[in-house]
Amino acid sequence: MQFDSLDDIRAFCRDLPVGDVRAAESAATRQQHLTKPPGSLGRLEELAVWLAQWQRRESPRLDRVTIAVFAGNHGVAVRGVSAYPPTVTEQMVANFSAGGAAINQIAKLASADLRVMPIELARPTRDLTVAAAMEADEFLAAVDIGYRAVPEDCDLLAVGEMGIANTTAAAALCAALLGGGAGRWAGRGTGVDEEGLARKQAAIDAALVFHRGILGDPLVLAAALGGRELAAIAGAVLAARRHHVPVLLDGFVATSAVLPLARLAPAALDHCRAGHVSAEGGHRQLLRELGLKPLLDLDMRLGEASGAGVAVLLARAALACHTGMATFAEAGVSGTED
Amino acid sequence: MQFDSLDDIRAFCRDLPVGDVRAAESAATRQQHLTKPPGSLGRLEELAVWLAQWQRRESPRLDRVTIAVFAGNHGVAVRGVSAYPPTVTEQMVANFSAGGAAINQIAKLASADLRVMPIELARPTRDLTVAAAMEADEFLAAVDIGYRAVPEDCDLLAVGEMGIANTTAAAALCAALLGGGAGRWAGRGTGVDEEGLARKQAAIDAALVFHRGILGDPLVLAAALGGRELAAIAGAVLAARRHHVPVLLDGFVATSAVLPLARLAPAALDHCRAGHVSAEGGHRQLLRELGLKPLLDLDMRLGEASGAGVAVLLARAALACHTGMATFAEAGVSGTED
Repeated sequence: MQFDSLDDIRAFCRDLPVGDVRAAESAATRQQHLTKPPGSLGRLEELAVWLAQWQRRESPRLDRVTIAVFAGNHGVAVRGVSAYPPTVTEQMVANFSAGGAAINQIAKLASADLRVMPIELARPTRDLTVAAAMEADEFLAAVDIGYRAVPEDCDLLAVGEMGIANTTAAAALCAALLGGGAGRWAGRGTGVDEEGLARKQAAIDAALVFHRGILGDPLVLAAALGGRELAAIAGAVLAARRHHVPVLLDGFVATSAVLPLARLAPAALDHCRAGHVSAEGGHRQLLRELGLKPLLDLDMRLGEASGAGVAVLLARAALACHTGMATFAEAGVSGTED
Repeated sequence: MQFDSLDDIRAFCRDLPVGDVRAAESAATRQQHLTKPPGSLGRLEELAVWLAQWQRRESPRLDRVTIAVFAGNHGVAVRGVSAYPPTVTEQMVANFSAGGAAINQIAKLASADLRVMPIELARPTRDLTVAAAMEADEFLAAVDIGYRAVPEDCDLLAVGEMGIANTTAAAALCAALLGGGAGRWAGRGTGVDEEGLARKQAAIDAALVFHRGILGDPLVLAAALGGRELAAIAGAVLAARRHHVPVLLDGFVATSAVLPLARLAPAALDHCRAGHVSAEGGHRQLLRELGLKPLLDLDMRLGEASGAGVAVLLARAALACHTGMATFAEAGVSGTED
């Protein structure tokens, strides 16, 4: 395993691989010479520079884009916190395999390889209101699955998840790490009704009481309140950092999954961008807390990397302009008057 | 010509072709059955339903997508309102033809046909601070060029422009039709400096005084304050309505170009969506006035249909999900618990 203990993860976050500032500067300089007013492609320019920095290449590429979707089941589902039964996690994994889900269509459009990794669906995490969802070894095993899911030669990684009841786990994790209680972080997830939302908030508040003794430790909390798919996302984001792969995060759950890393080291997510902001209310707040500005705001709230997958299209637009446009000199276009 | 007089346009706007509500309902019903929580694809669902409504097809398609970029020159450029000399309009048209501009890369990525139409670049409009930019016949000729630029079998049209000094014309048009003076609508365009911005505001305010006698007539104002490329955009949007083609608008100038149509008939833009909101400050206000919610907000301010072109990618994502996803029944996925 890449990380044999929580301490191994802590050590990695103390000595994070860095991006290539010179490659970023070189890309930014090229942007200044392309046939457009400087800065006029806005965040598409930023994306090109970001790809250069984290790929450590003056001329970034997107030959191999991977969309990784991790799936897990959650003991807290017994608390009636979701609009859907837990069997849907496995059914949706089958739907991913058959090519019938949203992310299949988006991945195809974005010319991305889709990797779907169900993690011990027959063994849900324990109910986080009355127990640690995972022990450290279970958490580390899931982190490892995520870590190994990232191809070393990948140019861009988008991460997402599937797991009935996992917005409850995500909200509990946010509440434990950022404060504000269930009221701040619990949303309607897949579309739970008023009573379901009340049950969800009660479960989160119960979890905060039960786990009050460990609130100071981000990784212990990630194990106690998270889920296998969240742990795998954290592992994938760490692997991406190791292999110099920029990452597009999906929605509320995917972002919650990497919150513990940011609490360990504020720079841990420097290679990540928020693909979108979800309609799940907590996500906007979470992104603000992390200083991440979403690329898209389309009222999506599906998970399964769908928002990050659409954001891959923006990365492709950014790269196409960066590499394909003529410079002022090449095109014989006059510069500014001054 | 499609419209021999301004009255012909007024008559068209009194009796606008309508979308197909039954096709829209059918598409919305399909969205309810796809393997995702209802509504969870957010604006991608809206886009699919919108395509169905305006294509008048239960199952919309995007086999032929056209990006139309119109270019014109502006007499008001002599007032020193732009960071670039007017020769850049023609140079950029050459750059479009050579494939070196941003929109070339974006159109290719979006599998869209790019049509670039320079309109009498050697004959700039008159300086709007001291004259009508165009007479009615000149305006109608440009409208006609735009009208004829839209293929009847087109499935989606994105419209944009190129024209040094045209944010001055656009801002004058907005100020004349929506009030607030130059201060509300003048932005930095391609990146004019402080003194240039002051000259731009002075030009707009001068135009408002000079043309104070015609402020009540949207089409007369479109001729007096607009430009040939703006008129062509209005013509293209009218043709799209005639041929049942949904439209993605680009930025501040493109949206200003169709403002006069909305003032003639509030429903005139029902077949249009705002592809993005530009970093040019007036655009956000203009979209709000028109009740248009932008699909993208990427700090872009390049024009040349670049924002609308990127939004074509979102339309493709919407269609891919709409047509490619399995239904709950097909995939054997359980519905909500209730």
